[in-house]
Amino acid sequence: MQLHLSTWVEIEDYLMRSRGIVIPIGSTEQHGPTGLIGTDAICPEAIAACAAEEAGFLVGPTFNVGIAQHHLGFPGTITLRPSTMIAAIHDWVASLARHGFERVYFFNGHGGNVSTINAAFSEIYADRSLSADASNRGPVKCKLANWWDFGPVMDFCRAKYGASHGSHATPSEIAITWAVHPEAVKQVEMSPQVAPTGRFTDAADYRAKFPDGRIGSDPALAKAENGAELIVLAAKGLIEDYRRFLAS
Amino acid sequence: MQLHLSTWVEIEDYLMRSRGIVIPIGSTEQHGPTGLIGTDAICPEAIAACAAEEAGFLVGPTFNVGIAQHHLGFPGTITLRPSTMIAAIHDWVASLARHGFERVYFFNGHGGNVSTINAAFSEIYADRSLSADASNRGPVKCKLANWWDFGPVMDFCRAKYGASHGSHATPSEIAITWAVHPEAVKQVEMSPQVAPTGRFTDAADYRAKFPDGRIGSDPALAKAENGAELIVLAAKGLIEDYRRFLAS
Amino acid sequence: MQLHLSTWVEIEDYLMRSRGIVIPIGSTEQHGPTGLIGTDAICPEAIAACAAEEAGFLVGPTFNVGIAQHHLGFPGTITLRPSTMIAAIHDWVASLARHGFERVYFFNGHGGNVSTINAAFSEIYADRSLSADASNRGPVKCKLANWWDFGPVMDFCRAKYGASHGSHATPSEIAITWAVHPEAVKQVEMSPQVAPTGRFTDAADYRAKFPDGRIGSDPALAKAENGAELIVLAAKGLIEDYRRFLAS
Amino acid sequence: MQLHLSTWVEIEDYLMRSRGIVIPIGSTEQHGPTGLIGTDAICPEAIAACAAEEAGFLVGPTFNVGIAQHHLGFPGTITLRPSTMIAAIHDWVASLARHGFERVYFFNGHGGNVSTINAAFSEIYADRSLSADASNRGPVKCKLANWWDFGPVMDFCRAKYGASHGSHATPSEIAITWAVHPEAVKQVEMSPQVAPTGRFTDAADYRAKFPDGRIGSDPALAKAENGAELIVLAAKGLIEDYRRFLAS
Amino acid sequence: MQLHLSTWVEIEDYLMRSRGIVIPIGSTEQHGPTGLIGTDAICPEAIAACAAEEAGFLVGPTFNVGIAQHHLGFPGTITLRPSTMIAAIHDWVASLARHGFERVYFFNGHGGNVSTINAAFSEIYADRSLSADASNRGPVKCKLANWWDFGPVMDFCRAKYGASHGSHATPSEIAITWAVHPEAVKQVEMSPQVAPTGRFTDAADYRAKFPDGRIGSDPALAKAENGAELIVLAAKGLIEDYRRFLAS
Amino acid sequence: MQLHLSTWVEIEDYLMRSRGIVIPIGSTEQHGPTGLIGTDAICPEAIAACAAEEAGFLVGPTFNVGIAQHHLGFPGTITLRPSTMIAAIHDWVASLARHGFERVYFFNGHGGNVSTINAAFSEIYADRSLSADASNRGPVKCKLANWWDFGPVMDFCRAKYGASHGSHATPSEIAITWAVHPEAVKQVEMSPQVAPTGRFTDAADYRAKFPDGRIGSDPALAKAENGAELIVLAAKGLIEDYRRFLAS
Repeated sequence: MQLHLSTWVEIEDYLMRSRGIVIPIGSTEQHGPTGLIGTDAICPEAIAACAAEEAGFLVGPTFNVGIAQHHLGFPGTITLRPSTMIAAIHDWVASLARHGFERVYFFNGHGGNVSTINAAFSEIYADRSLSADASNRGPVKCKLANWWDFGPVMDFCRAKYGASHGSHATPSEIAITWAVHPEAVKQVEMSPQVAPTGRFTDAADYRAKFPDGRIGSDPALAKAENGAELIVLAAKGLIEDYRRFLAS
Repeated sequence: MQLHLSTWVEIEDYLMRSRGIVIPIGSTEQHGPTGLIGTDAICPEAIAACAAEEAGFLVGPTFNVGIAQHHLGFPGTITLRPSTMIAAIHDWVASLARHGFERVYFFNGHGGNVSTINAAFSEIYADRSLSADASNRGPVKCKLANWWDFGPVMDFCRAKYGASHGSHATPSEIAITWAVHPEAVKQVEMSPQVAPTGRFTDAADYRAKFPDGRIGSDPALAKAENGAELIVLAAKGLIEDYRRFLAS
Repeated sequence: MQLHLSTWVEIEDYLMRSRGIVIPIGSTEQHGPTGLIGTDAICPEAIAACAAEEAGFLVGPTFNVGIAQHHLGFPGTITLRPSTMIAAIHDWVASLARHGFERVYFFNGHGGNVSTINAAFSEIYADRSLSADASNRGPVKCKLANWWDFGPVMDFCRAKYGASHGSHATPSEIAITWAVHPEAVKQVEMSPQVAPTGRFTDAADYRAKFPDGRIGSDPALAKAENGAELIVLAAKGLIEDYRRFLAS
Repeated sequence: MQLHLSTWVEIEDYLMRSRGIVIPIGSTEQHGPTGLIGTDAICPEAIAACAAEEAGFLVGPTFNVGIAQHHLGFPGTITLRPSTMIAAIHDWVASLARHGFERVYFFNGHGGNVSTINAAFSEIYADRSLSADASNRGPVKCKLANWWDFGPVMDFCRAKYGASHGSHATPSEIAITWAVHPEAVKQVEMSPQVAPTGRFTDAADYRAKFPDGRIGSDPALAKAENGAELIVLAAKGLIEDYRRFLAS
Repeated sequence: MQLHLSTWVEIEDYLMRSRGIVIPIGSTEQHGPTGLIGTDAICPEAIAACAAEEAGFLVGPTFNVGIAQHHLGFPGTITLRPSTMIAAIHDWVASLARHGFERVYFFNGHGGNVSTINAAFSEIYADRSLSADASNRGPVKCKLANWWDFGPVMDFCRAKYGASHGSHATPSEIAITWAVHPEAVKQVEMSPQVAPTGRFTDAADYRAKFPDGRIGSDPALAKAENGAELIVLAAKGLIEDYRRFLAS
Repeated sequence: MQLHLSTWVEIEDYLMRSRGIVIPIGSTEQHGPTGLIGTDAICPEAIAACAAEEAGFLVGPTFNVGIAQHHLGFPGTITLRPSTMIAAIHDWVASLARHGFERVYFFNGHGGNVSTINAAFSEIYADRSLSADASNRGPVKCKLANWWDFGPVMDFCRAKYGASHGSHATPSEIAITWAVHPEAVKQVEMSPQVAPTGRFTDAADYRAKFPDGRIGSDPALAKAENGAELIVLAAKGLIEDYRRFLAS
């Protein structure tokens, strides 16, 4: 069930039987010579849609621009500053809490978002924690999970890509985007075959160290059919983890 | 050309031939008993995609949650506070300006966003205006247009729906969402057939005056085939208006 | 009745019989070679004072610096950033709501303020809308009106100035300031007689397009006696519109 | 010379011969049973106008709402939060610096503003201080002075009112408003004759301790003719102090 | 009793018998050729510790970075912007109020903090003042005192240092740091013996006027044994003043 | 070398030979029935001091209040909201960068700070990344490390405390505070011996799940002599890790 494709009456009904929602959250940033700029939004969105269809839960709109300041050396990248992202997540969750949602599960496609999403949760909880008495808003709980963190997904990546998986513009995320958008498959010669690894700070530093945008990966290993498998594996992980969260 | 489906290398090439981009911008809010909560994002996104395919310009990610505080009386609505939205638009435009984009065209699907988007433009321009000397950032120009404001679109709506068009949950916007999402067509008896009109302030005031969420409209008049026509009409208007903007 | 010239005891009495207040809101910005920098504050302040005397309502202090970033190319202009103005309007209205005011009517003298004032209203309403239960503050309602928007005022301007009215440094606003401040009447040769028109973004862009500050106007047509008439006409419009607002 | 009654061309000329400006800054707050809510803005505005006429310097618009949270227990009071006021003063000064103003003299009528104005100056200076190299903006200097702080003004108050001067709703400030607004003179029996003194925190605490709003004063001692004398005395002090500031 | 050296159970007990706490607040900034960068935090921390031991009250953590933008021309200085400091003090006090603290006494070691701390108090009080009804939070009261403001302390400084005391890098504050940190005593030839005095704005202005960082002082007069005396004198003043505050 | 115990001249000299600084960063929050509220600040401060003495690097003031909203159910806890902490860290780093520091190493004692510190780094880097050209500020790099993350420290804890180490109010951190503050050693019967484990959201949720404040730990295992060993082990890890960072 997709919030964007539902009416308010349907959501009112849904709230009778569940107080939870899944929010895909990604980024709009370069993903190497062949990866799509929308990769980090496309992946959790596709997985969540697959899981929602099977398990019947509600999926909200995709939060599609995140923390990508370090990728701004590459055209097309869009970032929020962390303080802006915290304010936006705060408003999203406050809106949902207003309707009675009590479990908001952010399903994430971008490692660079993790710290800021967690900081946003603390910002939201602090509203309640700083009030000695009960506030008007119910005690909403938030959770963050990355699609690649489920055991079977990690096993699959290790088995298929091994040391060439890397951490940015990985063959697994690119495979998923190809499964979803076969019209957007792109192939170029990678040089070097596997990208360098390392740490980085701002955009200039990142581009100097990772000239084509990849970190540690060989995205040429990506195959659309692996993407389809990954979606199913991750959707399964999401369903289980989300159910645990609802029960918490 | 979709930013989310492009690589950074493709955007680098695009910037050689154009400095403009179109950003669909909507809202996540109730649209009456049959309208989709995502209506205001779906419409400009679909029209921009149609126009981009024909005219070859670049479309960015959809800004999908806007100013909807007045709809919070209806489950499923999500809002940003205006100050949050200004910060977010500021960051999006600052990111694009960093890459050399000089014309950012916000293509809007929600009347309630107009004031805040314009305020965001002033916030962005003020950065430059308050610096006596030239800053590092190029002189980016922003423009806002609503998909329903093009003459032929307005004529079409007047001809098809007349006084039953209204201003929220209109048959025209619902028709477009049906053209895009035929799987999400919903029909219920409208009562009254045409919704009341009036002004409103906060969420409680809105819900008291417009109990099923519509303002002045009879969405039962919507037909998917009209939606398809509207997309084409509005895409044509967008192409012309965007070209004028690029040339400005 | 002027808030600034009243005691708190008088305001306590006033609140027994009315819950409304009018706030003149303007800008501090260049108005062409002869127009006063205070024009946009002087006009609504004078009209509101005239109306208040006749109709007995309360007028608050004038909000005298607004959104004028685009005029910063001309010495003397002062601007707020939109985010600052939203915070300030929020605090003014919160203060008034604390005393029991329920209708705050912003009477505006500057087109460039409109978007930000409306965004500020949404910011204020969002406080309530995001709280599921009743808050402590009463349901204050805000309204924005421009002094030139009343029908008879527009008719007068069309009749007197026709195509030479323009949109900035207009003969009508200059006439009003001359009626109020005869000591500040200034006359210079206009060149061209009627200023160019067009759109603008930041301060540098504005100054390049409108070298003497005017847009589309011939302020040499202004006459102090027309200003006096305009004040009376606009005051009449204000009284009617404000009464409708009180009754809403 | 009044900024609000000048054209941009006149300000451009003025900047050839002076880089300074005086900004009256006040508050909108209760001033006891007979004092005007606008007292703190009226006083510095009148004194600055008197001084400017004699000494030929430029006076900007009056910053008319300040820090008055402690007076919110009395109807009619309007406050900014300190963080809002800092942002607003920052924007005013940034605008003036943009035009080449290098000395901004805030002429204050409200003790409760002092801390926040000084904090705003630090906020403004911090912009420059945190940049290792020269910024685009010139090195603007700000100064705060209260109209009652000049020696002869203090002597006059001590001589006329002695221990009944107090610190809020003082006979001296009320006398000034009566000199400026003879139409707004109000008289009521004071009880007790001289108000209590003490410290306060928030609005409820203030109202509990000072039930009619005065602190330590007997405003019944005010006379309009003393107000006229005070204006002249304070204007003289302002001229001298402002000249020292320009020369600093 | 030190908060940092207590358990929550001990604080729970303490709150049974007292609702007050003392927060030392300082700065991290240059103090001339021999003064320690931590001087302004070390002094109130040492005095408060001494007083707490004698009088049995609770001392919180030291707020150790304050408003020092004007000292940024000297390496090692760290500043907060005033808006940041207001937010931080707000959060500290809100946390303490949550536990039932009703008197928060900020014991200050840096003149440059005074305005911003007072502005922060207004920001905190405004939360309550803008709510017409009672809020959840108790009516916390805050107070600011500087360690050098107690009469006997001032007398001591006048007697010992006379006109060479000055206002920054004073022999009294340096003496206190030497009493606390004998291992950090430093001596250099002062030139001139007594530093110049004057006003300042930003960091560049300050460094130009006060090349070695001192204002009006001769820190060579400092002696560690005087520091020990000053700690005792100031602790006595603190105990008395804090007790008055608790009783207010 | 301690910043607080140095003069600006000494820091100027230091900057000739090194561009790095270590900032201990902690929290002020309950640590179970026997743990000190200052534990998370005391530990990194003590370890950094030990390391600095051996390796000769500079240690800045301790950032002593962090993200502790979840501990606000226990008296004495003080928190910053994440948005406040980001602003504060931003200002600290901007100040240090102004002086030419290029490596700022935050040495952390509180797991709950990690996300917000990382978000603050992104906020700082975003300033540069959003500017296409070089800014005035040098390319400062920040790093976060927790004292317990060095291999030998983890080995020690595993060997000594095994499954009773837990994650809050751990015997290792309590041992360190006892080594530093033998006067503050406290012992109570733990019940249960080992605290429960689990996840938490806001303060009410935390207190409900962990009634005495501990998570998964048995702090009764702490011994001051182990604390001394831990300080040495962690200092060694810090020296190595900091040197790698300087060389990066």
